[in-house]
Amino acid sequence: MRATVMYGVHDVRVENVPDAQLIKPGDALVSVTRACICGSDLWPYNSMKSSEVGNRMGHEFIGRVEAVGSEVRRVKKGDLVVAPFAWSDGTCEFCAQGLQTSCIHGGFWGGTKLDGGQGEAVRVPLADGTLVVLPVGEDHALMPSLLTLTDVMGTGHHAARAAKVGPGKIAAVVGDGAVGLCGVIAARRLGAEKIIILGRHPDRVALAREFGATEVVSERGEAAVERVRELTGGLGAHSVLECVGHGESMSTALGIARPGGAVGRVGVPQSNEMPEAKTTFYRNVTISGGPAPVRAYIEELMPDVLEGRIQPGKVFDSVTNLDGVPDGYRAMNDRKSIKVMIKF
Amino acid sequence: MRATVMYGVHDVRVENVPDAQLIKPGDALVSVTRACICGSDLWPYNSMKSSEVGNRMGHEFIGRVEAVGSEVRRVKKGDLVVAPFAWSDGTCEFCAQGLQTSCIHGGFWGGTKLDGGQGEAVRVPLADGTLVVLPVGEDHALMPSLLTLTDVMGTGHHAARAAKVGPGKIAAVVGDGAVGLCGVIAARRLGAEKIIILGRHPDRVALAREFGATEVVSERGEAAVERVRELTGGLGAHSVLECVGHGESMSTALGIARPGGAVGRVGVPQSNEMPEAKTTFYRNVTISGGPAPVRAYIEELMPDVLEGRIQPGKVFDSVTNLDGVPDGYRAMNDRKSIKVMIKF
Repeated sequence: MRATVMYGVHDVRVENVPDAQLIKPGDALVSVTRACICGSDLWPYNSMKSSEVGNRMGHEFIGRVEAVGSEVRRVKKGDLVVAPFAWSDGTCEFCAQGLQTSCIHGGFWGGTKLDGGQGEAVRVPLADGTLVVLPVGEDHALMPSLLTLTDVMGTGHHAARAAKVGPGKIAAVVGDGAVGLCGVIAARRLGAEKIIILGRHPDRVALAREFGATEVVSERGEAAVERVRELTGGLGAHSVLECVGHGESMSTALGIARPGGAVGRVGVPQSNEMPEAKTTFYRNVTISGGPAPVRAYIEELMPDVLEGRIQPGKVFDSVTNLDGVPDGYRAMNDRKSIKVMIKF
Repeated sequence: MRATVMYGVHDVRVENVPDAQLIKPGDALVSVTRACICGSDLWPYNSMKSSEVGNRMGHEFIGRVEAVGSEVRRVKKGDLVVAPFAWSDGTCEFCAQGLQTSCIHGGFWGGTKLDGGQGEAVRVPLADGTLVVLPVGEDHALMPSLLTLTDVMGTGHHAARAAKVGPGKIAAVVGDGAVGLCGVIAARRLGAEKIIILGRHPDRVALAREFGATEVVSERGEAAVERVRELTGGLGAHSVLECVGHGESMSTALGIARPGGAVGRVGVPQSNEMPEAKTTFYRNVTISGGPAPVRAYIEELMPDVLEGRIQPGKVFDSVTNLDGVPDGYRAMNDRKSIKVMIKF
């Protein structure tokens, strides 16, 4: 079969790899119908050490179940399924709490040992815990929005939950990438009264407004902090969604949280040192978040997608096929595209 | 009147200062009957830049109301009152949420402009919002425990709340100072099933056991993290109370929190960089806490003190008078005393 493999900085290839197949009795074999490229794929795209073996890429996909192992009970051949960006058993202590990204027996797609979503097929371990059956056909108009449930919509929702967004609150979203845009959707869905997007790309900011952002702050650094303070009566936001992961964006996020407020971080941190340890202490700011347990959120968010109340699929401004994946990486890296969908 | 003034490293003096007096209509004048020395007083004791003016010291006191300003309604001359370590109006947006340490009109005792608790009398601004009347006489046997409501017991409670301690949970307390010991009391009071104290001073650890600690970890650094993992089935603690503030203790606290767990930090951070930004991200660890709004907790905790269910006053292992304050600082700094009470 053919799949996407990354060999180093800016070196993404689509090539022949061994066919995906069932190995364990809990596996499902899924042929991919839709996948996408994630902002987090751009971290290795810009920093990966050259490798002879290469890493299989992609952690967001929807597909058709082709076969299941002998122990699989909850999905069957022919089902159209959505996969979260982490696979999980659904039964361990952490899964039971809804923290499937810490599943004791789970893991993440791709790399050197597992299939990735940016390929024709995927062996899905722990299929019963991992996959969710979709109630629509593979060419349904809502497919783009359903595809965001694999990662970015659930991740934006996780940021909003970690930031304790609720009715009447002021939310601020740091970052206008696909996750930040989904964070705007999530903040609105959870009842935020005012939603400030911190971003400077006109097309993304326009989409943020469409999703419910009420204010735009295009400044950066200390100027952004000042601007948010002005917009919040000098106090700062109750809930801040950090959707980037850079030191500077984290400083901004921590700086604009009001006393007693919360920062939900879902941008993958690029440093092991967090800034503003003292200043957040004196203001009793809560810092929460991490890899979103999107498996827990698929069932919560799917009705809103199916009934059209949220339209996160609008973050896809480009569609390609498997051969177009290397160009897709380039387009996202050059900020010519917010998020690229891959249609098989 | 006489009061404690710090002029620089290891330079604490008791000397004559201008008499405390009413200035604003919301003030109360309180003659101090009990006060104490705080672990946080040792930070400036070991680092303060030499000053000609000096800083008035002390933020924990109980006293008798001698006079009140024209606008004071809730306390009156003759009342015995307990003061939290921050004064607050009780009415602003943050006070209304129970975050009095961020009161828009409030502040902290001592320094160059206000009286401190380690002196004969204190002008209390915003007396109606700040002071709580005690229902017992000034020589009541519970006075030491009531005195801890000014700071350390409320601070230990804040750490436990921020760390989301609850029934059935495993709590770990980093630090065996007075706040850590009160954190053990708070964790037990909130229903923790297992309480691990990280400390190495035999007398303090013994008191921690008396307060409800079920396990003691005397290792430090990575060895401490390993030991806590062993004690928690490899997973770590649900709730970690960081009661020190050093970079190393914070690393330990963050390292022993299980996925989805929470760290409540009340030790004043000595650096503006927080360690473990990535590792805590991948485990979805929540970091919360800051200066405890002890004003909010006095009424919650006082019944437990008055009815003898908690005995935080046991953290005082030394009593002195005002003249003995400089020796008290030395004793605490040399770890010869856990916490010194000052009786006037």
